[in-house]
Amino acid sequence: MQLLEERIRRDGKVYDGDVLKVDSFLNHQIDVGFLCTLGKEFYRLYRDSGVNKILTVEASGIGVACLTAQYFGCPVVFAKKSKTSNIGTDVWSAAAHSYTHGTDHTLVVSKSYLGAGDRVLILDDFLANGCAAKAMLALCAQAGAQVVGAGIVIEKAYQKGGDDLRALGLRVESLARVASMSPTEGIRFCD
Amino acid sequence: MQLLEERIRRDGKVYDGDVLKVDSFLNHQIDVGFLCTLGKEFYRLYRDSGVNKILTVEASGIGVACLTAQYFGCPVVFAKKSKTSNIGTDVWSAAAHSYTHGTDHTLVVSKSYLGAGDRVLILDDFLANGCAAKAMLALCAQAGAQVVGAGIVIEKAYQKGGDDLRALGLRVESLARVASMSPTEGIRFCD
Repeated sequence: MQLLEERIRRDGKVYDGDVLKVDSFLNHQIDVGFLCTLGKEFYRLYRDSGVNKILTVEASGIGVACLTAQYFGCPVVFAKKSKTSNIGTDVWSAAAHSYTHGTDHTLVVSKSYLGAGDRVLILDDFLANGCAAKAMLALCAQAGAQVVGAGIVIEKAYQKGGDDLRALGLRVESLARVASMSPTEGIRFCD
Repeated sequence: MQLLEERIRRDGKVYDGDVLKVDSFLNHQIDVGFLCTLGKEFYRLYRDSGVNKILTVEASGIGVACLTAQYFGCPVVFAKKSKTSNIGTDVWSAAAHSYTHGTDHTLVVSKSYLGAGDRVLILDDFLANGCAAKAMLALCAQAGAQVVGAGIVIEKAYQKGGDDLRALGLRVESLARVASMSPTEGIRFCD
């Protein structure tokens, strides 16, 4: 998606340690109008897939998930990163590792909000190693929910997550695919 | 807001320990269309206040903040609950205690995204003891940003947060104000 690539080139910052910082518009400050444009693109891609639920992970996926869900007319469910005293024990759960934060955690979703009959679009801001997406797939499998595909804002295509998911037969639509990046050379997108 | 009170009566669950669970539509599963209706109400209340930024806290505030921000045509900034390796050290920060989760944490916002010249609407899903709201006020004070008010989905009016904030001279608009609640007696709203 050219508009997104231009925005990443303009506002994204690349740091050592494989960090692409886009927190001016995507995941700390949120450019809501721009994310609506991304949401419309996800809708264009998946409008015929019978999506009735969007699943994402707290916290950085919630904005794009909510703004996208408007076009689908469906609810969002966000997986939580650890059990809280409020959520009860009646949850689907799957382990996930965050390379960004160097932490292990468990993603949990209440069994009340994900089940058989759901046709799920998985959405997230980033896809790199694919740990979060795979954990969300696991949650859907436990629930008996059907996953129609994944919608990703930025895929680091040089990491294995996207390939892994596609090898599973999952449809993965990434609005921007980074082929390579470095603080000195900048960002190159896949053709 | 009658529509919200009806929804809370219908779908909310009260548990011992002062827990009002509304995670079927507000903060785990998100009824996006309904939250847009709440967002329009926040816009009606604050449309003349010159809001140019909405500030909330991850994770449960992000959905309502993003869906509300559409009507204001302004960005959202969400405070993060701890420093991450991505956010750098150039942050405003304030301590906060979560009674819900029984945890202490520090709210941080990048100095790049909150500053003098900002006219901030603070939004959150719940107001109880007011710790999160006060921490957001502290962040805005550090930044030299002006706070035009707070918009709260559900205020536990029998706790001190709302009174504390109003005593500071802050405009606080809560769409539902719970006067009392218990698992046996149910929920009573303020008149």
